[in-house]
Amino acid sequence: MLKVPQHQVAGHEAGIGKLGPLVDESGRFYKPLQGDERGANEVAFYSSLSTNSGIPEHIQRFFPTFYGTQLVEASDGSGLLPHLVLEDLALGRVNPSIMDVKIGSRTWAPEASEKYIQKCLKKDRESSSLSLGFRISGLQIYRSKELGFWKPGKKAAQKLSTEKVKLVLRRFVSSNTLNDLDSRPDCAFASTVYGGSTGILSQLLELKSWFEDQTIFHLYSCSILVMFEKELALKGKNPGAQIKLIDFAHVYEGRGVIDHYFLGGLCSLIKFISEILTAPNECRIEVSAKADQKNLTADNGVVADHKSHTASDNGVVADQKNLTVSDNGVVVDQKYLTNSDNGVVADQKNLTASNNGIIADLKKLTDSDNGVS
Amino acid sequence: MLKVPQHQVAGHEAGIGKLGPLVDESGRFYKPLQGDERGANEVAFYSSLSTNSGIPEHIQRFFPTFYGTQLVEASDGSGLLPHLVLEDLALGRVNPSIMDVKIGSRTWAPEASEKYIQKCLKKDRESSSLSLGFRISGLQIYRSKELGFWKPGKKAAQKLSTEKVKLVLRRFVSSNTLNDLDSRPDCAFASTVYGGSTGILSQLLELKSWFEDQTIFHLYSCSILVMFEKELALKGKNPGAQIKLIDFAHVYEGRGVIDHYFLGGLCSLIKFISEILTAPNECRIEVSAKADQKNLTADNGVVADHKSHTASDNGVVADQKNLTVSDNGVVVDQKYLTNSDNGVVADQKNLTASNNGIIADLKKLTDSDNGVS
Repeated sequence: MLKVPQHQVAGHEAGIGKLGPLVDESGRFYKPLQGDERGANEVAFYSSLSTNSGIPEHIQRFFPTFYGTQLVEASDGSGLLPHLVLEDLALGRVNPSIMDVKIGSRTWAPEASEKYIQKCLKKDRESSSLSLGFRISGLQIYRSKELGFWKPGKKAAQKLSTEKVKLVLRRFVSSNTLNDLDSRPDCAFASTVYGGSTGILSQLLELKSWFEDQTIFHLYSCSILVMFEKELALKGKNPGAQIKLIDFAHVYEGRGVIDHYFLGGLCSLIKFISEILTAPNECRIEVSAKADQKNLTADNGVVADHKSHTASDNGVVADQKNLTVSDNGVVVDQKYLTNSDNGVVADQKNLTASNNGIIADLKKLTDSDNGVS
Repeated sequence: MLKVPQHQVAGHEAGIGKLGPLVDESGRFYKPLQGDERGANEVAFYSSLSTNSGIPEHIQRFFPTFYGTQLVEASDGSGLLPHLVLEDLALGRVNPSIMDVKIGSRTWAPEASEKYIQKCLKKDRESSSLSLGFRISGLQIYRSKELGFWKPGKKAAQKLSTEKVKLVLRRFVSSNTLNDLDSRPDCAFASTVYGGSTGILSQLLELKSWFEDQTIFHLYSCSILVMFEKELALKGKNPGAQIKLIDFAHVYEGRGVIDHYFLGGLCSLIKFISEILTAPNECRIEVSAKADQKNLTADNGVVADHKSHTASDNGVVADQKNLTVSDNGVVVDQKYLTNSDNGVVADQKNLTASNNGIIADLKKLTDSDNGVS
């Protein structure tokens, strides 16, 4: 029995009439194959992964396990469609905090079509990709059983300023700022999640070493998924801090050159996380942080004031109603209705009327579905 | 007595009616101050260098010493003009082999004017900057007392393909390929120039460490100058392998973010040089190299067949006449006339008529004058 993933933070969400990824109970993640060359690219990449001698074993673990392709009933009810069958990265996790970080100042390959390049270029310029070398494509941070997750809107997350990105990276490992958005992030879990020999930073540095050397692939528009479990950290247990690389629809041959776009962005992310570890208590962005938080609740239409009820036994937000009228006239009306026995979001209705004419069309498949359920 | 520098490989060369840098006998290099904000930027950057506590001592040595600004007679005869007074990086060097490598896939800051951005973007796309994260802005490689220097045209150098850049980096430290362009580069000086604890790679890695951490400056359109002396290497002496950072007209504040463009490009260059050290004898580009060499002599209008006479006692090329008709109709006519007692190039005449309408105008000041005389 295939279901809609619980913990997807970026990419397209499946739902009634919406094509998106699915999961089964055995821990497999089904990603609809994009009909054009992107789908073929991604299959080719995953197929080559396990046999590619250029990817050492300690790097292989950063990629989701690939189980081939399979025809399954598409989530939008359109019938049998080919899907990539991947490892469900959220398997075994109860309430994971997750960040999807799209790496690289440039998310397009020169080989891509001019139309695609222009589309990406626009997104790169509008987001933090150009300035930071990466952008947060989406995230969810677990708050508590009562409050569920803090999950800013994807569009807003991608457009965060430098200071806001720094704030979010601190908030991601803090125990306080999600219930009280005015307080300074305490970075309570920084050392156990970001730090240590098996922490996020250590994993990112391993990845960096490989990217300094590998000239096999250029991974345009690829994301690093950062995950951990707050509840385990609170109990003093191993929080399961882990990174995974996802989204390979735009992988090109490296042809003897390193992927300096990916590497540069990765180093930029590493620098931010290192700073948090060096000075977890010294949040230099205190003043601007408050302004940022204000922006996170209004200017960018980010949902920050969730009115949530927990209708499932694992703390997943099951009924969330938000109405945000922001400074730039964006009206966001989000309704989550749950009709399944495990609190899975089954119906999402997004009505967006904005001054700049951006209408989100979630039915269109783009390229950043992530492998998290 | 100010003179035109002997060993300039990129940027604008001074000459009759041409504004360019000058040197004096005490080892100072005079770079005409660009009239617009670029000049002011560069002065501000150099002024802040020595007092900036964010630049550790072992990194300070990669920057030219700065002696302030001074009004001096401009090289184009236009009268007194303000100049940056810098250390003459070629001082004490007799026949230096020099490469000017402009670092970064993006040579423009978002803060720059749209017109400037478009100009840079075009150059970045036409050159190897986008693909490699750097481009060779110019170079000269010493051949012998009889043959002088091998000095490809700047435009051609900047447009080298990946394989050609790899070839040039090998040729830079080879003893054979400059006299016989059909032979495989022997990389005879690779270990003494690129390798070792004080070699080029070691210096680049030091710089890399700093760029992984520093968030003070973003150095757009900045170059790394790579220098050594072949004659010393041949004698088994220390070849004086050295890198220097030059060209700071487009430095911007880092504002808490690393310069991931510079860092990515630097890592790409480091990878190429590491490969040469790992396999100096294993020139994988043998087949394509021959095609490349053909290109270097024809397709791109690079001057590869110098007819040179040495008119000075230190082996500097003093009379060089080249006529190259290339596959794409580029006609390059270069005349070097020497009218000084030490073989200094005093008059350079470039006539370029090409199918694509590019006419070099050396009178215009751009931003890549380098501090080499």
